[in-house]
Amino acid sequence: MFITGIGRTKFGILDKSLPEMLYEAMQKTLQDSPLKIEDIDAVVISNFLAGPTTSQLHLGSLVTSLLPGTNLPAFRVEAACASGGTAVYMAGSLLSDYENIMVLGGEKLTGQMNKKIYKNIAMAGDLLRDQKEGLIFPAQYALVAAKYLKKFGLPPEDLALVSRKNYFNASKNPLAHFNYRDLTADAICSSPHICHPLKLFDCCPISDGAAGLIVSRNSLSQRDIEILGRGAATDAISISQRKDFTGFSAARCAAKRAYDAADIEPADIDLAEVHDCFSVAEVIAMEDLSFCRKGEAMDLIRSGETSLSGRLPVNTDGGLLADGHPVGATGIAQICEIVRQLRGEAGERQVSRPEIGLTHNVGGVGGTAVVHIMRRCI
Amino acid sequence: MFITGIGRTKFGILDKSLPEMLYEAMQKTLQDSPLKIEDIDAVVISNFLAGPTTSQLHLGSLVTSLLPGTNLPAFRVEAACASGGTAVYMAGSLLSDYENIMVLGGEKLTGQMNKKIYKNIAMAGDLLRDQKEGLIFPAQYALVAAKYLKKFGLPPEDLALVSRKNYFNASKNPLAHFNYRDLTADAICSSPHICHPLKLFDCCPISDGAAGLIVSRNSLSQRDIEILGRGAATDAISISQRKDFTGFSAARCAAKRAYDAADIEPADIDLAEVHDCFSVAEVIAMEDLSFCRKGEAMDLIRSGETSLSGRLPVNTDGGLLADGHPVGATGIAQICEIVRQLRGEAGERQVSRPEIGLTHNVGGVGGTAVVHIMRRCI
Repeated sequence: MFITGIGRTKFGILDKSLPEMLYEAMQKTLQDSPLKIEDIDAVVISNFLAGPTTSQLHLGSLVTSLLPGTNLPAFRVEAACASGGTAVYMAGSLLSDYENIMVLGGEKLTGQMNKKIYKNIAMAGDLLRDQKEGLIFPAQYALVAAKYLKKFGLPPEDLALVSRKNYFNASKNPLAHFNYRDLTADAICSSPHICHPLKLFDCCPISDGAAGLIVSRNSLSQRDIEILGRGAATDAISISQRKDFTGFSAARCAAKRAYDAADIEPADIDLAEVHDCFSVAEVIAMEDLSFCRKGEAMDLIRSGETSLSGRLPVNTDGGLLADGHPVGATGIAQICEIVRQLRGEAGERQVSRPEIGLTHNVGGVGGTAVVHIMRRCI
Repeated sequence: MFITGIGRTKFGILDKSLPEMLYEAMQKTLQDSPLKIEDIDAVVISNFLAGPTTSQLHLGSLVTSLLPGTNLPAFRVEAACASGGTAVYMAGSLLSDYENIMVLGGEKLTGQMNKKIYKNIAMAGDLLRDQKEGLIFPAQYALVAAKYLKKFGLPPEDLALVSRKNYFNASKNPLAHFNYRDLTADAICSSPHICHPLKLFDCCPISDGAAGLIVSRNSLSQRDIEILGRGAATDAISISQRKDFTGFSAARCAAKRAYDAADIEPADIDLAEVHDCFSVAEVIAMEDLSFCRKGEAMDLIRSGETSLSGRLPVNTDGGLLADGHPVGATGIAQICEIVRQLRGEAGERQVSRPEIGLTHNVGGVGGTAVVHIMRRCI
């Protein structure tokens, strides 16, 4: 299967509704692709919170309102922050029934509805075990970070290296939520505490935005990017139900399934987009994806190997931390970035001739994980 | 593809949480099937409103909490009241990647959260065009009913024939929400107005419940039911965006796709479960499924042909009107009923030796439609 078109909006605090953003992503995706809207056989929509935040469900039909008279099959998928990756995964399976499928994802999280946004985002956690205990996601990931740092004897300041890299990358991405080119590790470490050991710049922002792509059964041009392998997995929803949470078994499973399907090794990956909702999540992702051994991810990051000019650039678009995290769009935007890099169209942040890229999209605190591995055709 | 196991809870006002109901449906489905939980390769979850009503999203991971240590891929699908049919449809496509897939759907709509339930259900309609105008679903379907009755010169009392049949059928279904064996057309016609011309008994109830089934790539036993053909389609979300709403183009499209895939004619169908969220919806379904010509559905119903002993029994379990409508479960329960009838296991409501059955599941006011056609193997 092949990705034959990509497109996305700017991420940030946008004065646009969800349908407006989805429409913009759809138009940009079609402009990027050799296909026309008449060639699209089905649509998969990724969204997390439009019900609770904007009182709008049934997005399959809503998107068809933007495409009058088409009667396209349209399916909405939700897997918390892994909704986007999950939607692309399911579109891959739907290729058994359709030739060309558009995947659209978006989220409207800022504005009037924002006052309840922390409560709404917490719906990705278990109602009884997490939400009612006040364990919103920054608190959950703070537990993960504290446990990880303690287990491997690392200072909290190390986490700033992840944020600094991703903010720098975002400064080369004109569509990113943030553009702070010169954010220093000192500034990150002296930013306000959100939940110890996580500071402000260890946490991704609340963003609006949308992204789209087209998956096709057959290749249409040399710009197409092949999906070599994919994997999806889940784990118990609450970290209180897990033996260990310094790594995520769902991510390890999804990665193994994707590597096996692609018949490649972790060492074959030239660049990756990983789910850095918090700085510590990128650290753990390096290990769950077998880019290094358990406990060694900080060494990898510290060495500069995951920076734009390193051996394995990670989150070249700025990641969730600095590109932003409009939840339903995120997993799709990760794939858009890999496609852009593999095509050699990433502008100022282009890395050197990558051949194989990987995306890693996570829902909750490792409750869902989806991994895609892609390769350029020429 | 084959259905190799079915199971469901009672529908009604239940003192059970959503996870409890999903667990019960899962257990019953496994008991009905030759498969064990270790044989299941993936799960698709159908749910409409757990976010807004019970503050619980990320149900893929939640279901995995019920299956410790499995790391199964699990995907939640939402398409308003067509969520269940859509989930089965997507499971069919996922068979290109997996051997045996469990589909689980459920909804918790009664109880504490119930005060906002009408507002929440309205999220299946367009925010600006429908919700903000106060067009909740009984009002929308009342417009459909008024227009249909006027166009074909029919009295509102005719609609009572649908409700009477479905309430009678539900009285033979021990798991149904209602058991009013002797509900007369007079009692239906003299029930309180909900929105003219729809009376209380023209409207389905708010139900809790869950249902499950397993779809398998290969047949496992003679009890299996083959899915011969399936179709999905959407239309603009608001009836204000349609030229005509005395029929649903999404349902006609989905039906045509399913008939074409199964390579059969409407006349080959021996029984059907159709989406009778309101009595008028069953009338329109008869025409959208080409069981009769436009404007002739009331003749078909009046003649008794769609009753249990008729040529084409419709909604043998009582339908949404009397079996109940726990939204995420509904489309799955429709398929469970067809499977039960085709196997000859429908007890008191068993119809005479049916070979081919059809389900028709609709979201919103015809915004999404999914049709499945099934046949027994022996």
